[in-house]
Amino acid sequence: MVDILHRIAAKDVKPRAAFDAVATRDGVASWWIGGTTGDDAVGGTLRFGEGIAAEVVERRPDERVSWRVTEGPDEWLGTHIDFDIKQDESYTVVLFKHTGWAEPVEFMHHCSTKWGVFMVSLKQLLETGTGAPTPNDVHIDNWS
Amino acid sequence: MVDILHRIAAKDVKPRAAFDAVATRDGVASWWIGGTTGDDAVGGTLRFGEGIAAEVVERRPDERVSWRVTEGPDEWLGTHIDFDIKQDESYTVVLFKHTGWAEPVEFMHHCSTKWGVFMVSLKQLLETGTGAPTPNDVHIDNWS
Repeated sequence: MVDILHRIAAKDVKPRAAFDAVATRDGVASWWIGGTTGDDAVGGTLRFGEGIAAEVVERRPDERVSWRVTEGPDEWLGTHIDFDIKQDESYTVVLFKHTGWAEPVEFMHHCSTKWGVFMVSLKQLLETGTGAPTPNDVHIDNWS
Repeated sequence: MVDILHRIAAKDVKPRAAFDAVATRDGVASWWIGGTTGDDAVGGTLRFGEGIAAEVVERRPDERVSWRVTEGPDEWLGTHIDFDIKQDESYTVVLFKHTGWAEPVEFMHHCSTKWGVFMVSLKQLLETGTGAPTPNDVHIDNWS
């Protein structure tokens, strides 16, 4: 098992706001990929620009969203991306998992850091109303 | 195997600068824990403030630094923290691993994101001369 794990807590934020940010096309476009399009219902396909797409496999209001990657880098194909949401007093906590990686390749190291960058973007979106999705994301690599 | 992995690439930076940042007490104090003290030679113990300490187990100039955690949160005891450094044209790449976690507990999710935040701090230090170590780090949790 080689997984990417992350956790953020957003202050004075309700689970509904975090759910909307990860479960809806417009929400995802506000903290991850600016050009997110497609169908965010269960069974639908979300397209995240630059050749990445995922099927929505689970969508439990205020609690959980799960995607299965259907297009993207070879290492991502068939992997799952999950968001679990819970309230903790005045905070809402988001637990993130990107599971199903075959090997801990260098690209996985990069994706782990980059997901962390985007989780901070999600927290900023929830707390301030403004995230940093692509193309305004923090650049960490030498590949693009 | 449950590991935390990260990768950054710092532009117009030589491996020596990245090595100094992760291998020396003053370097670590400039991107991770502001109050880092102790002995950064192999076999020495570095103290990272707030009850975290590690033995330096490996230190290969411009290539690799490895620590074994000897004091800290229960989940950290006995884990290893490794930095591998390499040049890629005008960039220096740092591959980070925090290995030996017993279980993917919620605290591990947090530490993964937080290490990502500190890796961005390391990149900023290398590229601009100014990192964001504690207590000036980006806050992501509801625990402190």
